[in-house]
Amino acid sequence: MKIGILGGGQLGRMLTLAGYNLGFEFRLLDPLPNPCASQIAQTICADYTDPEALEKFMRGLDVVTYEFENVPAETVDWLGERIEIHPGAKPLRFSQDRLPEKELFSALQIPTPEFFAVASFQELEEARKRINPDSILKTRRLGYDGKGQWQVAADTNSLTLWDEATAGESSETSFLLERKIEFSRELSIIGVRSKNGGTAFYPLIENVHMNGLLMSSKAPAKNVQGLQKTAESYAAKLMAHLNYVGVLALELFDVNGNLIANEFAPRVHNSGHWTIEGAATSQFENHLRAICGLPLGATSVLGNVAMKNIIGIIPALNEMLANQDAHVHLYGKEPREGRKLGHITTVERFG
Amino acid sequence: MKIGILGGGQLGRMLTLAGYNLGFEFRLLDPLPNPCASQIAQTICADYTDPEALEKFMRGLDVVTYEFENVPAETVDWLGERIEIHPGAKPLRFSQDRLPEKELFSALQIPTPEFFAVASFQELEEARKRINPDSILKTRRLGYDGKGQWQVAADTNSLTLWDEATAGESSETSFLLERKIEFSRELSIIGVRSKNGGTAFYPLIENVHMNGLLMSSKAPAKNVQGLQKTAESYAAKLMAHLNYVGVLALELFDVNGNLIANEFAPRVHNSGHWTIEGAATSQFENHLRAICGLPLGATSVLGNVAMKNIIGIIPALNEMLANQDAHVHLYGKEPREGRKLGHITTVERFG
Repeated sequence: MKIGILGGGQLGRMLTLAGYNLGFEFRLLDPLPNPCASQIAQTICADYTDPEALEKFMRGLDVVTYEFENVPAETVDWLGERIEIHPGAKPLRFSQDRLPEKELFSALQIPTPEFFAVASFQELEEARKRINPDSILKTRRLGYDGKGQWQVAADTNSLTLWDEATAGESSETSFLLERKIEFSRELSIIGVRSKNGGTAFYPLIENVHMNGLLMSSKAPAKNVQGLQKTAESYAAKLMAHLNYVGVLALELFDVNGNLIANEFAPRVHNSGHWTIEGAATSQFENHLRAICGLPLGATSVLGNVAMKNIIGIIPALNEMLANQDAHVHLYGKEPREGRKLGHITTVERFG
Repeated sequence: MKIGILGGGQLGRMLTLAGYNLGFEFRLLDPLPNPCASQIAQTICADYTDPEALEKFMRGLDVVTYEFENVPAETVDWLGERIEIHPGAKPLRFSQDRLPEKELFSALQIPTPEFFAVASFQELEEARKRINPDSILKTRRLGYDGKGQWQVAADTNSLTLWDEATAGESSETSFLLERKIEFSRELSIIGVRSKNGGTAFYPLIENVHMNGLLMSSKAPAKNVQGLQKTAESYAAKLMAHLNYVGVLALELFDVNGNLIANEFAPRVHNSGHWTIEGAATSQFENHLRAICGLPLGATSVLGNVAMKNIIGIIPALNEMLANQDAHVHLYGKEPREGRKLGHITTVERFG
């Protein structure tokens, strides 16, 4: 199989590594020069909307996927008319815009925080009256790792808030005001759906974020009586509705034992990196198996697994490896404040 | 770290994959065009004895290793004067020639089958008188996967045998006549030694060969009371004597509970491929950790592991993956009779 990946970041890199084991070949496309996956695979540097580059990219490939959720849906449509591509453009159209995403959750009866679309100062004022007092203003599009979000409290001045939110680089004016949820913890569920509709799920993961950035994950999450089934049913409904093929991650808040959906990602997910050593089959291999129409691999967990992101600074390798059970992953990226540079997984075997 | 590997076969490929996880970069050198590792890493196609190519190869590297045991020792010497290289030329000089190899086993009091050097028909006749009747005539150099070996029985005509053995492509005249051992099974031990002399060992592996080619391995080997310690002590003596850095494999015959050394390989070994999924740290990662002066990873085994080589023909991927616990590795090689094309590992977890 020769597989194309839109995006050449660490997710593309780890997909490629998983595929090399299976003897697959890869070609990547990324608008930035020298993304980290280009160190290990042929990578075309071109804009996602450059048809000539897309033609060159897709030549001789068997199937295409994406590792970056902000790939233009139009690009995926364009490719989809010419070559097999999974998970396709439909999931992107929901995940790239918080409004249809939340509407989809509601339509599928997946609980999600109360929300209102906000496109003007007036609408912000009205929405604030209905969600009182604590809420979060979020840009509908292109928010990631906590960017494009503003906390709103009783004493927040709407005018100052609006000025600040609309002053950004993108001069964004499409927002969502969302009720702030007092959750006891953040969970995620990672599922995979094959071409024939078969699904498999990893155990619920407990995540810790700081300033919107994932710091660490633990799997399987503790005290999840009943929650695993509920989470799987939510992810299964989403995947079935989207006729999804590949790995999908659903982020959830645990509010006193009730699961509230936050957002989903139509791709392999940072909270699933522990599956490389901690599960029978990694999320990366299962994504590739799914998009290639191959049987899914076992998703059983091998122990109590902890994954910690390496952010901003890379500690010395011999220090990280001093723990003989540490599995260190470095993505080949230049250190920069707030940048995800790698992760460390430890597995405490059961029994 | 930027690492150079002499040889671009599947062992180089799997070393590279292990190193990519750690953020390492690689450059390989192989005299054959398009060896399978060249699909995933920069590879220079040149003879091992081409100084200009070696200069180009070593430029900017931090450390060099080899994945092919028939790399000329002179090449390793030449590089060793210019750059750090592990395990170095010394182990090669023993492993490439069965005579010094067996003499080393004897000197280190590692039991090995009785042997005699044979360089003429006369010496063959004399040796046969001393090892009577069943024995094996082996070329001293360049034998692998069962090639360069002739079974000798009571009724074997020495003249015919000598004609046949010396008629080969290489017109070899340096042989060893070795007593044929009636063993109950074949085992191997894989050890790793770090720069500071620290060692770690994987559990004993039980191997099945056919026509000299490894077919399958199981780990940990059953009924090895006392044998694990003995095997480790043999490998440890070898590595200490050779001032070895990296992974070394020692092949052993189990003769009614006594271990008899057959040969050693100064490299990662086919009988250790199961460590990728079956051990806490793979032999490939531990070899890289050793040659980079990093702490060794845990060698604990995660279950009952079985590894089966894919030889000559590649079954359909969806058939191989129908067992959801199968870990399939394909090396990207063209199928050819008797060629190792990949392997499949299954892990039956303990407990």
